[in-house]
Amino acid sequence: MNQDYIKPDNWSIIEEGFDAESVKSSESLFSLGNGAMGQRANFEETYSGETFQGSYIAGIYYPDKTKVGWWKNGYPKYFAKVLNAPNWIGINIEINEENLDLNTCDEVRNFRRELNMKEGWYNRSFEAVLKNGTEISVNVRRFLSLDLDEAGIIKYDITPLNKDAKIVYKPYIDAGVTNEDANWDEKFWKPLEVKKSNSEAFVTAKTFKTHFKVTTFMHNTILANGENVNISPSAIDSTIDKVQFTYGTIIAKGQTSSIQKIGGYTVSLNHENTLAAAEKCIKTAVSLGHDTLLQNQINAWAKIWEMSDITIEGDVKAQQGIRFNIFQLNQTYSGKDSRLNIGPKGFTGEKYGGSTYWDTEAYCIPFYMATKDQEVARNLLTYRYNQLDKAIENAKDNLGFKNGAALYPMVTMNGEECHNEWEITHEEIHRNGAIAFAIYNYYRYTGDYSYIPEKGLEVLIGIARFWHQRASFSKEKNQYVILGVTGPNEYENNINNNFYTNYIAKWCIDYAEEQIKKVASEYPQDHKRILEKVNLSAAEIQEWKKVADDMYFPTSEELGIYLQQDGFLDKELIRVKDLDRSQRPINQKWSWDRVLRSPYIKQADVLQCFYFFEDHFSREELKRNFEFYESFTVHESSLSPCVHSIQAAVLDKMDMAYTFYLRTSRLDLDDYNKEVEEGCHITSMAGTWMSIVEGFGGMRVKNDQLHFSPKIPKEWKGYSFKINFRHQILKVTVSHTETTFMVDGDQDLTIIVNGKSVIANKQLAKIN
Amino acid sequence: MNQDYIKPDNWSIIEEGFDAESVKSSESLFSLGNGAMGQRANFEETYSGETFQGSYIAGIYYPDKTKVGWWKNGYPKYFAKVLNAPNWIGINIEINEENLDLNTCDEVRNFRRELNMKEGWYNRSFEAVLKNGTEISVNVRRFLSLDLDEAGIIKYDITPLNKDAKIVYKPYIDAGVTNEDANWDEKFWKPLEVKKSNSEAFVTAKTFKTHFKVTTFMHNTILANGENVNISPSAIDSTIDKVQFTYGTIIAKGQTSSIQKIGGYTVSLNHENTLAAAEKCIKTAVSLGHDTLLQNQINAWAKIWEMSDITIEGDVKAQQGIRFNIFQLNQTYSGKDSRLNIGPKGFTGEKYGGSTYWDTEAYCIPFYMATKDQEVARNLLTYRYNQLDKAIENAKDNLGFKNGAALYPMVTMNGEECHNEWEITHEEIHRNGAIAFAIYNYYRYTGDYSYIPEKGLEVLIGIARFWHQRASFSKEKNQYVILGVTGPNEYENNINNNFYTNYIAKWCIDYAEEQIKKVASEYPQDHKRILEKVNLSAAEIQEWKKVADDMYFPTSEELGIYLQQDGFLDKELIRVKDLDRSQRPINQKWSWDRVLRSPYIKQADVLQCFYFFEDHFSREELKRNFEFYESFTVHESSLSPCVHSIQAAVLDKMDMAYTFYLRTSRLDLDDYNKEVEEGCHITSMAGTWMSIVEGFGGMRVKNDQLHFSPKIPKEWKGYSFKINFRHQILKVTVSHTETTFMVDGDQDLTIIVNGKSVIANKQLAKIN
Repeated sequence: MNQDYIKPDNWSIIEEGFDAESVKSSESLFSLGNGAMGQRANFEETYSGETFQGSYIAGIYYPDKTKVGWWKNGYPKYFAKVLNAPNWIGINIEINEENLDLNTCDEVRNFRRELNMKEGWYNRSFEAVLKNGTEISVNVRRFLSLDLDEAGIIKYDITPLNKDAKIVYKPYIDAGVTNEDANWDEKFWKPLEVKKSNSEAFVTAKTFKTHFKVTTFMHNTILANGENVNISPSAIDSTIDKVQFTYGTIIAKGQTSSIQKIGGYTVSLNHENTLAAAEKCIKTAVSLGHDTLLQNQINAWAKIWEMSDITIEGDVKAQQGIRFNIFQLNQTYSGKDSRLNIGPKGFTGEKYGGSTYWDTEAYCIPFYMATKDQEVARNLLTYRYNQLDKAIENAKDNLGFKNGAALYPMVTMNGEECHNEWEITHEEIHRNGAIAFAIYNYYRYTGDYSYIPEKGLEVLIGIARFWHQRASFSKEKNQYVILGVTGPNEYENNINNNFYTNYIAKWCIDYAEEQIKKVASEYPQDHKRILEKVNLSAAEIQEWKKVADDMYFPTSEELGIYLQQDGFLDKELIRVKDLDRSQRPINQKWSWDRVLRSPYIKQADVLQCFYFFEDHFSREELKRNFEFYESFTVHESSLSPCVHSIQAAVLDKMDMAYTFYLRTSRLDLDDYNKEVEEGCHITSMAGTWMSIVEGFGGMRVKNDQLHFSPKIPKEWKGYSFKINFRHQILKVTVSHTETTFMVDGDQDLTIIVNGKSVIANKQLAKIN
Repeated sequence: MNQDYIKPDNWSIIEEGFDAESVKSSESLFSLGNGAMGQRANFEETYSGETFQGSYIAGIYYPDKTKVGWWKNGYPKYFAKVLNAPNWIGINIEINEENLDLNTCDEVRNFRRELNMKEGWYNRSFEAVLKNGTEISVNVRRFLSLDLDEAGIIKYDITPLNKDAKIVYKPYIDAGVTNEDANWDEKFWKPLEVKKSNSEAFVTAKTFKTHFKVTTFMHNTILANGENVNISPSAIDSTIDKVQFTYGTIIAKGQTSSIQKIGGYTVSLNHENTLAAAEKCIKTAVSLGHDTLLQNQINAWAKIWEMSDITIEGDVKAQQGIRFNIFQLNQTYSGKDSRLNIGPKGFTGEKYGGSTYWDTEAYCIPFYMATKDQEVARNLLTYRYNQLDKAIENAKDNLGFKNGAALYPMVTMNGEECHNEWEITHEEIHRNGAIAFAIYNYYRYTGDYSYIPEKGLEVLIGIARFWHQRASFSKEKNQYVILGVTGPNEYENNINNNFYTNYIAKWCIDYAEEQIKKVASEYPQDHKRILEKVNLSAAEIQEWKKVADDMYFPTSEELGIYLQQDGFLDKELIRVKDLDRSQRPINQKWSWDRVLRSPYIKQADVLQCFYFFEDHFSREELKRNFEFYESFTVHESSLSPCVHSIQAAVLDKMDMAYTFYLRTSRLDLDDYNKEVEEGCHITSMAGTWMSIVEGFGGMRVKNDQLHFSPKIPKEWKGYSFKINFRHQILKVTVSHTETTFMVDGDQDLTIIVNGKSVIANKQLAKIN
């Protein structure tokens, strides 16, 4: 896939022309999701070319047996895999007795895909010349309903162009699916029951080990020129995990035959009786009908866009990029269910497994806080609260901590660690910091303190205990140190005194202590309940504070920077600009040891600390550290460019900020890292949003007030975004000459723009 | 297995009483080998209890597909497995129509195993009461011929004790074997051909991928009271990879029926036509007959012991320990074939795979140099010379080095790297140093310089080039550093400036440069040939020297010690004696990150440097470093106690030296690490020998002369050893009152004892 593959368009992702080489990449980019389920953009009909089949259901995972070369003590027994779910989209099609397959037919013309982000549907159209000489025109539209989130609908239209056609439709559902990344080629699904009638079918299966029960269903209707022809299947074939209906029909040249398939899942997470629920879901969908479902879909997406759209004028590619990011985030996570989280690939691929990384707290929460009701972010926090016991167990059983110290997993589905590389799993402990930071960030942004006495404080205490135990005293340095970690920059392993980790460790303890005091004075009953529950004494807090008050931070006085870790300056400090392009990406070109001893940084590390704790440092410090570290950063993590874009904007390096913005927003559309076929980088998409709102818009929350310092790349005419700040909706529009602010509703909102107080209300407030 | 399981005996390993729990451990301890093949002490007859079946052929390996959790660039594609070879020892036995199986029969009495190390045979005897009431007495003797090293012989005697018995012998050979540690449960052997006659059978198979062809053969004779009864098999059953003969016989109560089975392998490494070679081998073995073969075996072992025996008076366990070590080393490697090397488990198990580690150069060569003809050590050096091209390829293709830099593999069979953990494979680069050191050590000991101009210099150049490229210049330290390594202490990973590594890197460059000069002046033709071949300029050597001359060594002035690595003193320095016993072994009790950030040392690291380069340091430096590092050493590597024993002896810490000696010499017999069932620790056995000769005997070679400073543990009355020094055999006998030296042959040998010159000759030279 090259950078011009996706056609520029303000509202749609468009592919034109059939390219077998790009099928897997397009399957990722055109993925659909509705928060409850999702699918890669696999073809409905047979495709014998290279394809990566994927359907996914939120919260349904499989604990695949861990695979390692050399077992190390403390490794978890399984790696939770994003589970390829039963396929309900499949429709095999025969045209005049030839199986339709774009890989084998004589010619494919006018192939076009469109993912209409404004309305939330995916359309594929093409003309095919079959080996038997029949020429057909096909149009397929598919969407996953946001309202009725257990169902999706496919309308598959076929128009024979040069002769009458006998068309056989074979819609099926198939639970005999496997994961491409299964460690041991095991089966993940156990078929339970197949039920079928003349128009609908149900396959119930459950996952091995986790015992999630899923009923996959379909309901089929055959139409001619849009009218239901009320035909019954001529055959119904079923095995223990698959049902296929056969419908035969004849359509005249120039007329259109269609099959409309409603399909989806009902799952035991939500229903006692998944079969009954599936029957009910079909009934509802059928009674609403295709057109109403589609109109509801358009309305639901309009509502989402109304709140979360970002417009960019004068730069279609930038506009398309940001909308693609916002669209995917909304497809992945709706925030309705605190059992769910934001998988790094969403519903677009299997890779990485698990659903929850520190990405959620470090990158995603700001987006959901500002574009959704605050309950959504609170649900994301609650997810971690609900898994606190397992984080304590993880620290105790796998890693030898005690006394309620909590280490949240690097990767998880249900709170249990499921990642297995010691240098990540056991050493990338900074993730604990982001989880505490998100609690702070949530309160800072929403002003909703209630979460802390209710739930957050227990999490903060478990995390503070972890850092207290994890730090150790160095007699040599006469300070506390944290040895043997991997920082956010995963191109270093097992290092000592990672600045970011040490800094956030200290911060976590300080913040926990402050919140204990605050809860003691403002919520004395919660304070009593929690301290008794976790058995925390004043003496223990004093011990924590010793560590926080005397934490060591590696520093270079000479360069005026913090050191990413002890010994960083011993490296051969050749800047990225002086590194031969042929050597990049280094993680594909170099052996791991070489990556590790190089000075090259995968993603913001010291700078991530500056991003989280901007107010703790001066602009000059930011400038020195940014200029030093950015010059060694290869941005081979999707999470890197956004932070750099924001900081470049702060430092008035607008060209750089713009370049980083483009890289983050079109990472998948332009396939910067040559890997989009594995799926899209969902969590980093929230970073794209931050690049605009926090980077160009300069939005910050300080002392319960919104601050802005708007800037605009020279490539743009203008841009706008909306944020939901404490139940008020503020729209910000920036051009080269002015910035305007407008509040929904009658209440004023006092904001700080470039350091000056401005009263925003439902009239436009203009700042020149 | 407990520490009293093996009965103390000066010359034999003895187990008494049948304990199903110890079968796998005993199978390791009673293993047989003759340098060309070996076997675990599996029962010949059926055994349905827990067992670990293993037969091995020197040089025959399988490149098993690598298994890792997360693939990292530079990992090798395969891991060479020690291959479980076809089984030729099997004899199923029916007594009065009941299959003999010690796991299921009614009673096992007087079970006894003996591994007679003096004569080189293994005997197993027992009485069994079968379910059918038949009581039998069984005696089985087995040995692998040292002279005829493709053959072994089993004599299996059965005497019914309480009634006449119908005995059915079913000797078989079976190539349908698998490896317990196969990564992907693949088959390693492809059967080719089965050939059989009335008395002998041949199964030819070849390994997949490596295409080693092996003919496994057997020849059977049935005897009654020692006389050949000349019966033919009543049935011959065969499949594509197995042949079994059936012989029925009846023996009266109190009489003895026997089967004598000759078996073994002929391999394509040595024969064009393995089948013809097998036929010839059987013919030779049959014509010699069991008794002659046994007598030859006794004679051959007598010759080995004549040269390599160490006697210890007054301490049977110590005596048994050292003989077990010497016996196993001789079973594993005979030194005849420079294609072979010394696998860490020899012929006693599959674990670790590969045959060659740095163990060979760092621990084994001194033993073979002193107890064998010097050709044996030279063959071990030549093994590496022959693999130099692959070491250069490894550095280039896997790790990005250039210009002929060589990195020898961590683990290998054929010169290709086959280990796959980045922290070991890519970072435990000190192995290169031991390979250069062995060249130096060989010349120091043997005085045979010819190896260096012929072969060694090329190896030294490849290694020097590696270190030159691997070091980098630190502006911060204004010296050369070596970043991101794992030292001999594998309880640290990815550290900077490991003292041992930096030291040996500098030494390698210096030594290579010296040898280039020496070869230039003494072997100008070789000099010209080599420098042209490797394209080495004087300018390049100057570049190397910059690194060597300005290498950084981490040091603590305050403690007067070298630091194992940068930052070692930042650790929580709690000594092993203050560590709760329940926490050990730490590699089984702690997660890997905790091991890494602890101060605990798996095996000598800084002290390994002091061992190699003793003369570079003062006794006071040794004392300070020994006392510091030993206190943090947990000796969880089999290679650790020997070096500590030697250095404790130097420092007159004789109790400590003795304790370390016992631990190294009886590591397997007393199963210190609870893992002997996986196989014995063969390479560390050479360290046991060093503990006595270099430790207690104080043997050193300096300036072409042997030095001794004999000491004796208080637990012993005396000890003696022999060494072959430059074609003279010197016997050293030490008691509490005197040391005597005696030389074989007529030539005098001037040695230095406790700093004084002594002339040793064929008369006893006594030193009080």
